[in-house]
Amino acid sequence: MKLGTVRVKGKSEAVIVKGGELYSISDAARDLGIKGHIRSVKDVVQLDGRLREVIIEHSEGFRIDGSPAMQAPVQGPDKVILAAINYKTHANEQSFKGMEDPFFFTKFPSCISGPEDPIVIPRSSSMVDYEIELALVIGKRSKYVSEREAMDSVFGYMVLNDVSFRDYQLGKDLKSPPPLGHNWVMGKAMDMAAPTGPVLVTSDEIGDPYSLQMELRVNGKTRQKASTGEMVFKIDRMVSYLSQGITLLPGDIISTGTPAGVAAFTDRNFLRAGDVVEAEISKIGRLRNPVRNE
Amino acid sequence: MKLGTVRVKGKSEAVIVKGGELYSISDAARDLGIKGHIRSVKDVVQLDGRLREVIIEHSEGFRIDGSPAMQAPVQGPDKVILAAINYKTHANEQSFKGMEDPFFFTKFPSCISGPEDPIVIPRSSSMVDYEIELALVIGKRSKYVSEREAMDSVFGYMVLNDVSFRDYQLGKDLKSPPPLGHNWVMGKAMDMAAPTGPVLVTSDEIGDPYSLQMELRVNGKTRQKASTGEMVFKIDRMVSYLSQGITLLPGDIISTGTPAGVAAFTDRNFLRAGDVVEAEISKIGRLRNPVRNE
Repeated sequence: MKLGTVRVKGKSEAVIVKGGELYSISDAARDLGIKGHIRSVKDVVQLDGRLREVIIEHSEGFRIDGSPAMQAPVQGPDKVILAAINYKTHANEQSFKGMEDPFFFTKFPSCISGPEDPIVIPRSSSMVDYEIELALVIGKRSKYVSEREAMDSVFGYMVLNDVSFRDYQLGKDLKSPPPLGHNWVMGKAMDMAAPTGPVLVTSDEIGDPYSLQMELRVNGKTRQKASTGEMVFKIDRMVSYLSQGITLLPGDIISTGTPAGVAAFTDRNFLRAGDVVEAEISKIGRLRNPVRNE
Repeated sequence: MKLGTVRVKGKSEAVIVKGGELYSISDAARDLGIKGHIRSVKDVVQLDGRLREVIIEHSEGFRIDGSPAMQAPVQGPDKVILAAINYKTHANEQSFKGMEDPFFFTKFPSCISGPEDPIVIPRSSSMVDYEIELALVIGKRSKYVSEREAMDSVFGYMVLNDVSFRDYQLGKDLKSPPPLGHNWVMGKAMDMAAPTGPVLVTSDEIGDPYSLQMELRVNGKTRQKASTGEMVFKIDRMVSYLSQGITLLPGDIISTGTPAGVAAFTDRNFLRAGDVVEAEISKIGRLRNPVRNE
């Protein structure tokens, strides 16, 4: 099942994407007399599983006409957590030796953008970089879950582009981060720095999350290409680790790291206004974001 | 003016705190026929200034009976941003030489707790520490603001206790952070790690934010004592710096750093169940949080 968010008559609405058509979950729920608005994908994620199935089935009668703008599948998550250096090829390109435990940084809920939004070059950075990542969305409240239980907490997957501002993250020479470590806030969490989508694909439809092909292109030219199987810390380990003290909530986004090929560690050909970035992962789809100056 | 949030009949409500009494802003707004619910302090912050004055004045007729539980003044901010090492005494106690620019880390919106909530020792950490800080709340959408304009973006101030999990942040020996720098997520952003309050005091009532006395006590014993004037990077610098790429939104919380005296760099007497932590800043009030095991 592929879930998405569209904007219809000025309001966001949760939809099912099926055979190129969009079906309104909100209208189906209303028609069934479900109490409370089912407006967002976060609402859908939190529904009882059997009730969700009934609504989804009923949504077949509520096809949406026209082509409304697709937005970020998940709006307003409590947490946007990203794994730092979690592919060996990306570790190698920056001569990084690895870590004992997964390591994370964050973006703000308002960083999240969607499949029809631009990547914005801020006035303050001239080293804006891309990072294709497989992101997962948490389906249920989770704390102190074991690695064995962890996959039950995953509702589904999206593509995420971890847009980075290298001059802030690593210093203008790309090797002088501030004394306390990488500058994760200014280097990672500026506006529009987390394009997500194009849809949220449920875990059952993904099957094995480690056999997905990922490819990022800038202006049609391949820059990153890998399999999600190359991930160092796996999803169960990361979800379990984070849950040791942090309550993961439905809608929380956890991004699993990027492979080699980013601009900073190759030709330093950073993003410029007019570029088009396509990030594609098999079984999910292609996230296509134009780059523009602010 | 002192704003707070209380829970009445299962719902959060914005109140004015005045002479030991609480007055309902929500009821005053409703009585005046203001469209849309004014439920939260974030709603109040976003009101037009003159309209806010009218509602506040009208709230005198809506005193709340009894003693409802005080909650975190600001609920569900988009951003919770904290300055790392921003007092010389705190830099000195860890032999830190300083930085050219302010440096920030984040907590999750769900980390925010209030003046009647406990500090929770998670199962995974045995080095839970306190840090008293002056936190500011953003009053208006702000991007690319100069240092000269920055103070216009500040709506008011609260006390914030930057509860920290040192074994994660710095390693169990307190000097082996992970290779990429301090572990800000597991070391800072666990559940209930950001007690705030007891109220949000508006900028006009604070006057000079650099002449406030701050003191943190554990079980009545003073552990941290300083003046906010010792802050290294000042508020205007930090707000302006962050806004170079990040749109600050009404309700966003920015915490300005802690002085010397934390457990990690003194006697390693970390927080234990049964302790009571009081963090007090003049003109704002005293935040009192009991410590309990999870």
